[in-house]
Amino acid sequence: MSDPRILKFAQILVDHSTRIQPGDRVLIEATTAAEPLVQALYELILQRGGHPHPLMEPIEQKTALFKYGQEEQLKHMPVLRKLAYDEFESRIKILSVADPRALSSADPKKQSLWEATISPILETQMRRGAAKEFKWVSTLFPTAGYAKEAGMSLAEYEDFVYAACHADGKTADPAAYWNNVRVEQQRIVDRFQGSDKITLRGPNVDLSLSVKERTFVNSFGEHNMPDGEFFTGPVEDSVNGWVRYTYPAIRDGRVVEGIELKFEDGKVSSATAESNQDYLLEILETDAGARYVGEFAIGTNFEINRFTGNILFDEKIGGSFHMALGAGYPETGSLNKSAVHWDMICDMRQDAEILVDGEVVFKNGEFVF
Amino acid sequence: MSDPRILKFAQILVDHSTRIQPGDRVLIEATTAAEPLVQALYELILQRGGHPHPLMEPIEQKTALFKYGQEEQLKHMPVLRKLAYDEFESRIKILSVADPRALSSADPKKQSLWEATISPILETQMRRGAAKEFKWVSTLFPTAGYAKEAGMSLAEYEDFVYAACHADGKTADPAAYWNNVRVEQQRIVDRFQGSDKITLRGPNVDLSLSVKERTFVNSFGEHNMPDGEFFTGPVEDSVNGWVRYTYPAIRDGRVVEGIELKFEDGKVSSATAESNQDYLLEILETDAGARYVGEFAIGTNFEINRFTGNILFDEKIGGSFHMALGAGYPETGSLNKSAVHWDMICDMRQDAEILVDGEVVFKNGEFVF
Repeated sequence: MSDPRILKFAQILVDHSTRIQPGDRVLIEATTAAEPLVQALYELILQRGGHPHPLMEPIEQKTALFKYGQEEQLKHMPVLRKLAYDEFESRIKILSVADPRALSSADPKKQSLWEATISPILETQMRRGAAKEFKWVSTLFPTAGYAKEAGMSLAEYEDFVYAACHADGKTADPAAYWNNVRVEQQRIVDRFQGSDKITLRGPNVDLSLSVKERTFVNSFGEHNMPDGEFFTGPVEDSVNGWVRYTYPAIRDGRVVEGIELKFEDGKVSSATAESNQDYLLEILETDAGARYVGEFAIGTNFEINRFTGNILFDEKIGGSFHMALGAGYPETGSLNKSAVHWDMICDMRQDAEILVDGEVVFKNGEFVF
Repeated sequence: MSDPRILKFAQILVDHSTRIQPGDRVLIEATTAAEPLVQALYELILQRGGHPHPLMEPIEQKTALFKYGQEEQLKHMPVLRKLAYDEFESRIKILSVADPRALSSADPKKQSLWEATISPILETQMRRGAAKEFKWVSTLFPTAGYAKEAGMSLAEYEDFVYAACHADGKTADPAAYWNNVRVEQQRIVDRFQGSDKITLRGPNVDLSLSVKERTFVNSFGEHNMPDGEFFTGPVEDSVNGWVRYTYPAIRDGRVVEGIELKFEDGKVSSATAESNQDYLLEILETDAGARYVGEFAIGTNFEINRFTGNILFDEKIGGSFHMALGAGYPETGSLNKSAVHWDMICDMRQDAEILVDGEVVFKNGEFVF
């Protein structure tokens, strides 16, 4: 209970991510595995004059839902959660499963039913979030299950998570640090914003795409913690070339390694993988948008220097880029629609460069302008 | 997680106390200390076709609320809980604090504010409960804190709790057992119902009271688990005589031992105690109703054969009676109003008898008609 990093972590979430003000009603979503952080948030939100509302699941709740839940139950709206999303000023969601693979054998039909049931909640989050009525952030509390997935001991993984969030005590004022990321990273974003052609070259990529009239979004810990990326949606028919993703791509608990894609006029024209290639090809057939790129992004968190199998961290690996097949974010200008949004990550720290309209702006993991 | 008694416990609460039906929405209130029971309830409610909604508090939530909460926050309605009490079909509340004395040093003004804030929720519970719209039960999950309070090891205390609920495996079908308590105990209630004068005699009591035209309520595990008592509200000005309560009386974490009361025409005319007498006298001055008896009850659970400092258990001690100073239950016909309702318990297992209209019906802890 008394790990001082948990208090720092809570301070970042309350004072930087959600900027809790007196009177703010805040939903705290977590499993019981995150109780120390939930408690710290509860206390800090009270101290800021807010109204914390913890909503914790038993660790095995979701497993039981998909095991015992019948159609009527999977269609039943989680009304306590919905009330908060509809009315509160903020929500802090703490990923905190005990076993990240617990649901990998759950009935996909039941999972789809459940996803459809809760989709209005997620739409409300996006709508009220965009309207600045709802301050939301998603984060992760280190559990033994995540540590195992990352190939670390729990203590090592805690070090990794708190370092990535700058909650490890080495950063004197983490909220100020993340606010500074906003300012400093905006300088990089400005270099990309308003440009046309982006070219990526390296041992694992030879690719170009257009971002003409698209918007780059600066991610500095408002909606994700840890954070450190900026992203846009490329012009849909502009992606050409080849990429070999250097990290496993994970979707719904399935791991696909060694993905290589070729693009022609925006569309995946060839796709191979070293493992689970059939699954990759199946997903590409989901709908018309699944073969097009919805997101192009560069990771900028250099405390995250290894792959841990969790997208909240992996997509921010400093000196990497990622592209998502499928749905884009409307705020970037992306027009691509799909039921799929699958992030795939490629390391750019060695012998690699990124050019903006012909000028090298990134070399071997660092910005050079 | 795999104590088989927890599953039996859950079955009693779901199949006997709340009789969960398909479509029932059920709030499960607990602290995280009760997670194994919450999980068992979650699974069982799903299996019965219901919709379980766990609402768990961090163990230290209440302590933090009274430590950091300011007036506005103590006046803030817990809206998730309120929604469930207003709309759901059922709620299961699991007392499960880690430390029963944690709030004993909390600011009484803050506690009063909070009690006023949540009083509409409790009123809704009573109103919708009486209208048969809301099935509610309160129970307790054995924690180390309760065990310590009871002077037992946790393992001993678990044995005690599960035995008291008939969830310890010795009762083959606990739900059927409790239904049988309803039937069998009704025979005893019928002997009291419709009578006038009740007389109590023994080493610790010499008292008479009238129950003329008052209603006796049979308690068989619907609203409390464990259960085993029947109660009424005596005619307000009818109590005469003397009682020495053999067990400590506890209110808001304060323990008063060796209470002796004398009654004249219903009113406490003399009150002494071996410890905390000043507190006792102070409470008697709360309001006009605090010196009158709101409840007279007999405990009938013979698995509860010792005092453990928790009223959910103590008031059901087999072969005891208890009387509450202060507010009575309207459904009994009691007219006594007060902000106080303080149960005080007296052992009747030795050299003691209870007479109904002059006939001995109870002797040395047993009913003898």
